[in-house]
Amino acid sequence: MGRWQPNPTERLAQAALELFAERGYENTTVIDIAQRAGLTKSTFFRHFQDKREVLFGDGTLNELVAEAIAAAPAAATPLAAVAHALDAVGEKAFTPARREFGARRRAVIAANPELQEREALKGLGLIASMAGALKRRGVPELTASVAAELGALAWKIAYEHWSDTASGDDFSEVARRALVEVQAASALC
Amino acid sequence: MGRWQPNPTERLAQAALELFAERGYENTTVIDIAQRAGLTKSTFFRHFQDKREVLFGDGTLNELVAEAIAAAPAAATPLAAVAHALDAVGEKAFTPARREFGARRRAVIAANPELQEREALKGLGLIASMAGALKRRGVPELTASVAAELGALAWKIAYEHWSDTASGDDFSEVARRALVEVQAASALC
Repeated sequence: MGRWQPNPTERLAQAALELFAERGYENTTVIDIAQRAGLTKSTFFRHFQDKREVLFGDGTLNELVAEAIAAAPAAATPLAAVAHALDAVGEKAFTPARREFGARRRAVIAANPELQEREALKGLGLIASMAGALKRRGVPELTASVAAELGALAWKIAYEHWSDTASGDDFSEVARRALVEVQAASALC
Repeated sequence: MGRWQPNPTERLAQAALELFAERGYENTTVIDIAQRAGLTKSTFFRHFQDKREVLFGDGTLNELVAEAIAAAPAAATPLAAVAHALDAVGEKAFTPARREFGARRRAVIAANPELQEREALKGLGLIASMAGALKRRGVPELTASVAAELGALAWKIAYEHWSDTASGDDFSEVARRALVEVQAASALC
């Protein structure tokens, strides 16, 4: 009986994170990653455009949040629509199986100023996606921007909590709780 | 009668922005900048650490906002303290004389993904400075974070408006107006 084998994408991602942690992001090549995963360079490129995409994905998270906001009930308030997006992220992206990856990813990014810059811009992209989806629901521009910023803050708080491997909480639950707290805090500003 | 000559820092900054716009940030060297400004490379390095610092400063903006928040009246709400920071930015950094620099700077950053990443991280640094200064005033952590995020959104809106050279408005005025609107919008989320 062989042990459970993750799929190639997961093997590559895991190998990449190991190497980034061991020798630094800059000093890791795509060939190193493929070798560590026991796969070829061309297999790597069937799954990822480059090593950066292992950490930052291909933009599907932007689509995921926009679609979830579009699919929220018509009567949902802006923040209720944002909560739908956070649910979708917990269901499709930040699943319990991804928690360890999330923890290692955070550590790799924290160790590299360039990756921090990239992560910061990715955050702005997610905010823009959420704000855009809210505007398409008819939410006025500034309200949409504020709701997206508040959602992003709840997201950040939840991501830090969820990716801590000691926590057993679902991302969506933590994020919904954080969103309620963020909304309450905004009334005290 | 010679025409008015800006000081070396301004001459270097202006030369850098011209060159970034003409040939791209990546293709501009410190020597190019010094030559265009009619100054030496060593003069450049007395004013800036590298060409990036021409665009992003040396972190004094972080100190400026933190000090202004610390100096706000004890009874000020978190957002009133943030408004003090926006006033200080308008008075000390985004002055009318800097408007054209601001406009060119925005265009250069918009043309370069790496600079956008850097700008995004700089924004997070300013948010962290504001939140930290609010916490030191005794504002609870989450409220401080929310107030800093709302302040940053007002800042961004105001910067875009102010750096549009067609606008004759003071940064502080635009920012204070934006902050009031952001706060009102947060109640509609």
